[in-house]
Amino acid sequence: MTTGKINVSVENIFPLIKKFLYSDHEIFLRELISNGTDATLKLKHLSSIGEAKVDYGNPILEVKIDKEGKKLHIIDQGLGMTADEVEKYINQIAFSGAEEFLEKYKDSAKDSGIIGHFGLGFYSAFMVASKVEIITKSYKDEPAAHWICDGSPEFTLEPADKTSRGTEIILHIAEDSLEFLEEFKIRELLNRYNKFMPIPIKFGTKTETLPKPEDAPEDYVNETIEVDNFINNPNPAWTKQPADLTDEDYKSFYHELYPMQFEEPLFHIHLNVDYPFNLTGILYFPKLGADLQIQKDKIQLYQNQVFVTDNVEGIVPEFLTMLKGVIDSPDIPLNVSRSSLQADGAVKKISNYITRKVADKLKSLFTENREEFEQKWNDIKIVLEYGMLSEEKFYEKADAFVLYPTVDDKFYTLAELKENLKDNQTDKDGKLVVLYAGNKEAQHSYIEIAQEKGYQVLLLDSPIIPHLIQKIESNNNDMTFVRVDSDHIDNLIKKEETTISKLSDTEKETLKTSLEAYIPKAYTVQLQAMDSQAAPFIITQPEFMRRMKEMSQTGGGGMFGMGNMPEMYNLVVNTNSDLASNILNTEDKSAQENLVKQALDLAKLSQNLLKGEELTAFVKRSFELIK
Amino acid sequence: MTTGKINVSVENIFPLIKKFLYSDHEIFLRELISNGTDATLKLKHLSSIGEAKVDYGNPILEVKIDKEGKKLHIIDQGLGMTADEVEKYINQIAFSGAEEFLEKYKDSAKDSGIIGHFGLGFYSAFMVASKVEIITKSYKDEPAAHWICDGSPEFTLEPADKTSRGTEIILHIAEDSLEFLEEFKIRELLNRYNKFMPIPIKFGTKTETLPKPEDAPEDYVNETIEVDNFINNPNPAWTKQPADLTDEDYKSFYHELYPMQFEEPLFHIHLNVDYPFNLTGILYFPKLGADLQIQKDKIQLYQNQVFVTDNVEGIVPEFLTMLKGVIDSPDIPLNVSRSSLQADGAVKKISNYITRKVADKLKSLFTENREEFEQKWNDIKIVLEYGMLSEEKFYEKADAFVLYPTVDDKFYTLAELKENLKDNQTDKDGKLVVLYAGNKEAQHSYIEIAQEKGYQVLLLDSPIIPHLIQKIESNNNDMTFVRVDSDHIDNLIKKEETTISKLSDTEKETLKTSLEAYIPKAYTVQLQAMDSQAAPFIITQPEFMRRMKEMSQTGGGGMFGMGNMPEMYNLVVNTNSDLASNILNTEDKSAQENLVKQALDLAKLSQNLLKGEELTAFVKRSFELIK
Repeated sequence: MTTGKINVSVENIFPLIKKFLYSDHEIFLRELISNGTDATLKLKHLSSIGEAKVDYGNPILEVKIDKEGKKLHIIDQGLGMTADEVEKYINQIAFSGAEEFLEKYKDSAKDSGIIGHFGLGFYSAFMVASKVEIITKSYKDEPAAHWICDGSPEFTLEPADKTSRGTEIILHIAEDSLEFLEEFKIRELLNRYNKFMPIPIKFGTKTETLPKPEDAPEDYVNETIEVDNFINNPNPAWTKQPADLTDEDYKSFYHELYPMQFEEPLFHIHLNVDYPFNLTGILYFPKLGADLQIQKDKIQLYQNQVFVTDNVEGIVPEFLTMLKGVIDSPDIPLNVSRSSLQADGAVKKISNYITRKVADKLKSLFTENREEFEQKWNDIKIVLEYGMLSEEKFYEKADAFVLYPTVDDKFYTLAELKENLKDNQTDKDGKLVVLYAGNKEAQHSYIEIAQEKGYQVLLLDSPIIPHLIQKIESNNNDMTFVRVDSDHIDNLIKKEETTISKLSDTEKETLKTSLEAYIPKAYTVQLQAMDSQAAPFIITQPEFMRRMKEMSQTGGGGMFGMGNMPEMYNLVVNTNSDLASNILNTEDKSAQENLVKQALDLAKLSQNLLKGEELTAFVKRSFELIK
Repeated sequence: MTTGKINVSVENIFPLIKKFLYSDHEIFLRELISNGTDATLKLKHLSSIGEAKVDYGNPILEVKIDKEGKKLHIIDQGLGMTADEVEKYINQIAFSGAEEFLEKYKDSAKDSGIIGHFGLGFYSAFMVASKVEIITKSYKDEPAAHWICDGSPEFTLEPADKTSRGTEIILHIAEDSLEFLEEFKIRELLNRYNKFMPIPIKFGTKTETLPKPEDAPEDYVNETIEVDNFINNPNPAWTKQPADLTDEDYKSFYHELYPMQFEEPLFHIHLNVDYPFNLTGILYFPKLGADLQIQKDKIQLYQNQVFVTDNVEGIVPEFLTMLKGVIDSPDIPLNVSRSSLQADGAVKKISNYITRKVADKLKSLFTENREEFEQKWNDIKIVLEYGMLSEEKFYEKADAFVLYPTVDDKFYTLAELKENLKDNQTDKDGKLVVLYAGNKEAQHSYIEIAQEKGYQVLLLDSPIIPHLIQKIESNNNDMTFVRVDSDHIDNLIKKEETTISKLSDTEKETLKTSLEAYIPKAYTVQLQAMDSQAAPFIITQPEFMRRMKEMSQTGGGGMFGMGNMPEMYNLVVNTNSDLASNILNTEDKSAQENLVKQALDLAKLSQNLLKGEELTAFVKRSFELIK
């Protein structure tokens, strides 16, 4: 038996890094700037605990393009490295300096914000550079070092004459990566990944106009000067305490995050937790309306102020991916698949925490200013309703703030709804019947009929409503939801009293036979004794079938194949109406037919069923009547 | 100056592999099976060129779960390794055996289908295993070897007593990966990644019923036996020549790819190219209809029959991501970002090739059986129209097969359309006016008016139509598209003749004043002398504004902010109609108002503008008229 050590052949490591380390080459800049930030924050920490006897000052990072020399410089003023440290941290691949540092100073360094996550980051430089130089001067009293490597495993290391503290990385940009010498490209990358990093990052200069002196002559031309241009905001709102921020601060941060977004957010939720995981962030509710084309993936994920991704699937509960904002957490594992992410215990906790915080915020918004909350309801309902459907924990909390609006813009909580409806809308079997409309315009005539009876009609118009009311009914056995056009009103809420029919049974039989001669088979004719002033013909669509159909059309739920079932309609004829008598008493068959067909057309109009050729004929006929 | 070699510390390589190699741990099985397949195909190649003097036979791969022992076995019957080769290929990380093999045998091995791409694949075993064993016997006359490694860089290597050719990998599944001992999990992975791999893969057994013997008694119970269960089809349709496949073969392969898909594909396109890149595949046009909720990402990408991903964004032109099927190409770089993929020259060529093949196939389908092509038009148009908009190369070829259907189901090519329309639909300025409807039902009355004039009306109902006709117009200066309800028909196609007005100018003035007294400001009243039998009132919506609005609503194009402009309507009143005279001559103001309002309501009905409260009132009023 032989034993041995697996040998890693370094000739092959560089191509591997290029190939496997990151799928996106442009990430190199984020990595190098993260390293520079780390080096600066480490120095800050060491000087704060007295280990580094230096004047920390106000260090910055700088990124410089040397287009002619085809070089990109990244310069920090952090702790720098001695030649020995270069030997240790740079020449030994996969030896994460940050890890060792954190291990050594674990208690005091905990909150220093050191990135440390990206152990191999420096080598990503070779994804875009044919040669890399490091010129570095440690804060310790040792000579500067100059390291050069051309991407083969050979390197050279010699003393350098750099006197200022910190590290300069020089990338000799490879021929296939010359785009990284373009100012707009670097600006774009800095803006994407480093917009909120904690150390100021200088990139180029900008022109600033000096103020006009008080004693300036009338024809004075303002002087301009070139000043350093900093691209980042090192202290973004989410790193601050909520108590230190005004509503204006939150709004202006929103526009900082989304410069192209002109609308104001509805409200924000500041996240801030450090046990059992670390997470800060601000979530915003944007105006959503009932739009189905919702923009997801607008939440940005950071780790210690370094942008990571705007795909928070698996981290944020799905219904909240419709929000905007930022989440910053070093505790989210990034190099695992989305599916394992969702199975991860820590991530599950984060997701639950966010759900709870959102629910708590909604409850307090509702309690503190109900009127304002009601005004915002239409813009937030889609998120909340979807949340009730998809997150059991959210559903449980939702009773405290989810609203049920009526067609007259009254807003009830579920408890208020039950209380307000119970006297008038409890049917003879003791069930509370909630009437709702899906569209105020399209169902106008039905709403009017219900309101004439003194009933309240809810306006529930989100696409997921069929699923949601299904769920509410199964959690509230004493309630049932019916759309206002799903039957004649007296059948929707059945009471003890019945209306006496003007017609005898024989007359009804005769009427039915006459009607069925002219009414297409698609409609089931139902005779009903109603108030004589009520509509003579109405078309209804039974609740159950329609709801199942809608559910299977919006996906998930409903019954298999229901989405393709034909629509089912009833034609309810009011036997007490003058028109019914008129039809019954018209002897001339052709006149009777015209009467029935015109009445059917009118009923179809109210249910938006008169279309195309039929509508054209109806309109022509009606023009004839008034010419 | 010192020089040296960058040193890679192996202690850190394993965690790195675990962390960075693949974001999805489950990929290990694909990698190990790919290795086994490679080893088998290499042996086949060597024996075919006489270098390996062995009986190649019918080798298989086998995957076995040992749940009690917490082990997973992957066994191949390929060329195996000697102890020296284990030393070389396993103990030296990042030394891709396949690359070396391909280099050595590059001419003869070119078409042997060796995967070779995944140099580091074996080590992915450590993502799920705490210990890995290799027991391997080379086809060469040397003793078998047994290698064991527990994930630290230390390994042991000793002789083994395996006598059959090939390699067995034994994974001691780690505690955090026990899911990979579940039969359903392994079956799912094999089904996802290895369904079409070229060597049969055995996984477990299945029960097979033996046929009833001819002389069996009546109460004979069929015997069953356990047989090996193979999970893959080693010869999927795309690897064959089109000439060897029937239509039925293509359809049955479609169902093999999408077992849950019951509908038949409309047609297929077999891709097959080996210069300047290697690509095979079959694309299917599924039935799409005008549905906006199109399922993208149904095309599967393979490399040498190994499943890679179902995200072909950047590889297939965007408009074709609505298709289904499979693409197999070893030439697509996978470890780069999607954006660099789109910039990649080779990938651009692949994408162009696919576009061209699809266009050629469509042309030949159209030419060979126009009737069938017309029948399928509604199901494919969304892809083709989107392709015309988004790919210039496709637009250029589209004239040969893209169809313009009329509301009466006639289908014209662009050239035919021009030819058929030019006599009757060229206006007095020499422009060819193409009338179209967006919805046959909703615009029925307008279509009827146009048809009464002998005009043809196209039915263009895809959501991207406004963008597409904008593009067609800019490429055909002699053509203009107008929706059939965008003006009165005589204004849409202006001819030399004019209809004489029955009313004098003074009467017209009086009529206009009367009308404007009752017509809401939202409508611009236009008097027009038309045929006395034509509709007395019609509502039109000017083409330009409506189109710009629709364009900015469907995103991209149109003018900034147009999506939020209010709708603009004209009310065209036929001064030669009896109704116009009637209105003019009615002295009673209240009767006149009723007349105008009823006529306006009827015109609104035809344009689907009478809704909600107005519609309810109209229906009530009309019921009163017939009671």
